[in-house]
Amino acid sequence: MKNFNMHIPTKVYFGEGAIKDLSIEIKKYGNRVLMVYGHGSIKRNGVYDDVMAVFELGDITYVELSGVDVNPRLETVNEGVRICLSEKIDFILAVGGGSVIDCSKTIAAAVYYAGDPWDLVSYKTKIQKAMPLGVVLTLSATGSELNGNAVISNTQTKEKRGFSSEWMWPKFSILDPTYTYTVSPHQTACGIVDTLTHLYEFYFSAKEDAELSDAMSEAVMATVIKYGKIAIAEPNNYEARSNLMWASAVALSGMTNRGKTFEGFNHAVEHGLSAIYDITHADGLAILAPYWMEYVLDEKNVTRFARFARKVWGIVDEDDMGVAKKGIERTRRYYEYLEMPSRLSHVKIDDARLDAVIDHAFLGDTLGHLKILRKQDVRRILEAAL
Amino acid sequence: MKNFNMHIPTKVYFGEGAIKDLSIEIKKYGNRVLMVYGHGSIKRNGVYDDVMAVFELGDITYVELSGVDVNPRLETVNEGVRICLSEKIDFILAVGGGSVIDCSKTIAAAVYYAGDPWDLVSYKTKIQKAMPLGVVLTLSATGSELNGNAVISNTQTKEKRGFSSEWMWPKFSILDPTYTYTVSPHQTACGIVDTLTHLYEFYFSAKEDAELSDAMSEAVMATVIKYGKIAIAEPNNYEARSNLMWASAVALSGMTNRGKTFEGFNHAVEHGLSAIYDITHADGLAILAPYWMEYVLDEKNVTRFARFARKVWGIVDEDDMGVAKKGIERTRRYYEYLEMPSRLSHVKIDDARLDAVIDHAFLGDTLGHLKILRKQDVRRILEAAL
Repeated sequence: MKNFNMHIPTKVYFGEGAIKDLSIEIKKYGNRVLMVYGHGSIKRNGVYDDVMAVFELGDITYVELSGVDVNPRLETVNEGVRICLSEKIDFILAVGGGSVIDCSKTIAAAVYYAGDPWDLVSYKTKIQKAMPLGVVLTLSATGSELNGNAVISNTQTKEKRGFSSEWMWPKFSILDPTYTYTVSPHQTACGIVDTLTHLYEFYFSAKEDAELSDAMSEAVMATVIKYGKIAIAEPNNYEARSNLMWASAVALSGMTNRGKTFEGFNHAVEHGLSAIYDITHADGLAILAPYWMEYVLDEKNVTRFARFARKVWGIVDEDDMGVAKKGIERTRRYYEYLEMPSRLSHVKIDDARLDAVIDHAFLGDTLGHLKILRKQDVRRILEAAL
Repeated sequence: MKNFNMHIPTKVYFGEGAIKDLSIEIKKYGNRVLMVYGHGSIKRNGVYDDVMAVFELGDITYVELSGVDVNPRLETVNEGVRICLSEKIDFILAVGGGSVIDCSKTIAAAVYYAGDPWDLVSYKTKIQKAMPLGVVLTLSATGSELNGNAVISNTQTKEKRGFSSEWMWPKFSILDPTYTYTVSPHQTACGIVDTLTHLYEFYFSAKEDAELSDAMSEAVMATVIKYGKIAIAEPNNYEARSNLMWASAVALSGMTNRGKTFEGFNHAVEHGLSAIYDITHADGLAILAPYWMEYVLDEKNVTRFARFARKVWGIVDEDDMGVAKKGIERTRRYYEYLEMPSRLSHVKIDDARLDAVIDHAFLGDTLGHLKILRKQDVRRILEAAL
């Protein structure tokens, strides 16, 4: 097992009605809130009204920043910073899914940096401080509610980058599964794919004897797969929505990957696809994973893929290579069941700008550890997925 | 899934050499340390010297409180409080296993309470504050390094009680698996039983649809069972020691039981046995579990026991009741393999004071939820275990 540090400072309030703890948590940090959200789904599903009721009861004043995009943009971050400074904001509240949370985190850090926030995103400048922020979650997907990570898009330079800082962990996250009842089947499916990919990125890595992390990762994957189907069939099923909500938070909190190495292929290449083609993150992830698995699988790492097939998909009675291939096939079939796109052409990507995608994906010469990939390998994977 | 809150404020430094972070962490809180330890095993295995080297390099002054017993006593807590006050201590450092940590936590809370510390243990008075404390762990067992719980014995009143406070979470815990290489096979076995029992206490509870917690709990149980055997056969096996160390910390951190109910039989009754007979905690736990499982198993909860048998022990191809019984039998055989006592008579307990044990175990009229137990039920379980 690799050495590791772990610190999960975020307080989690989980369950129906958990919004009741919002006011007392905010008031630890002040009274003037920047409320960040997306394109208004929270006004249709009642979450906005719930937050307003808490603000009114708690005498909390607020300024709104709405319209955060699926791939949150640097311009929105800049607008948020401007409001924080001009309105003397004490606290940032993200009400939404990963995009809204990531945008809020970046605003929180950028408030204390006089230069271009992209310097923070690109690690040119280290984050030294951030405003306190909290989360009311409305989508089970990115796990941003329980980590210090964010992903931001720079539309000018056509870049989409993930970054991380201990300063960007939310002070608290309110996770009410009923807030996800109105999430559409496709958005629910996107969240499932995102959560599973977070787990793949550490599970499919070179052997490090971090058995406990592997076993817990399998537990989360199997839970997500089981309840994903149920949540799509029965959107108001509390058991399904609550397990998905907790699983997506746990999946990238660090608890299931301590002692492991970040593999990184899926996120690096998908960020390239999103940056160049502005597709939905999970669409890209769903397309890539089965092709990536097929390409990477070989005699040296077959035990890992076979274990995945047996423990996560319950496939039995075969030799390792046979089981491994069936596991990949089951992953592909599950994504088809979720009605995710399975080819790049499904999201209008042809081979015209694949080189730009690949250039974006590579910050160094290679990607991954399970099988070390170079640019020509990634091109082969993408061509297979066209 | 039941509603829950979660907050894990402790920073974990995990891996060989993690002691290097000790000085910088302590200095956040001050320079004068109360160093708490047990009966000197840390002087034989080099941990004491490692801590001394850090203190010297970091110019940290310290006072020692040694001799903490396996069932830490109120008298030792009082002595620790006296030292903290007279020596103007800034920080408490527990160097040892669960007993040392629990004693340190109680000292930390009692420093700010003018009355009898037993008031805090017995919840007569709520803990409002505690001194900062940290941990250098030398035994994988109680999980006290990653929670706010402590268990203290009152030899005057013959009571042993567990209690909990958010104030008693360690500020940091240093988990170096090599520090457990010298732990004896029996002590290693005791840690395994303790860890498994922490998981049982939430896993075997009434159905609450907290699938993710159940699946993660199974992952931790299976990991502990696998590496327990290896660590006993090869005490210096890093893979085994590191997985056991991380598993025991995770097992009672809250991560594997969110949304579940505390069942409580094993700890309530074992604390009774330890309080009245002063036996080792894990000896009592190992004796109780199989008899408790056998007594509790019925047609209504058979699916839970069958799941345990299939997922944790890998037993296949049987009807639920058959599988369930085999799972219990495998648990018993595993404990025998660990050379744990399997009957109360093995630890010199006869039926003379069982009523006192039972009275100690019951704070209310019933115990447990999976099957609700009254005093006469517990007597039957204890009699079967004589």
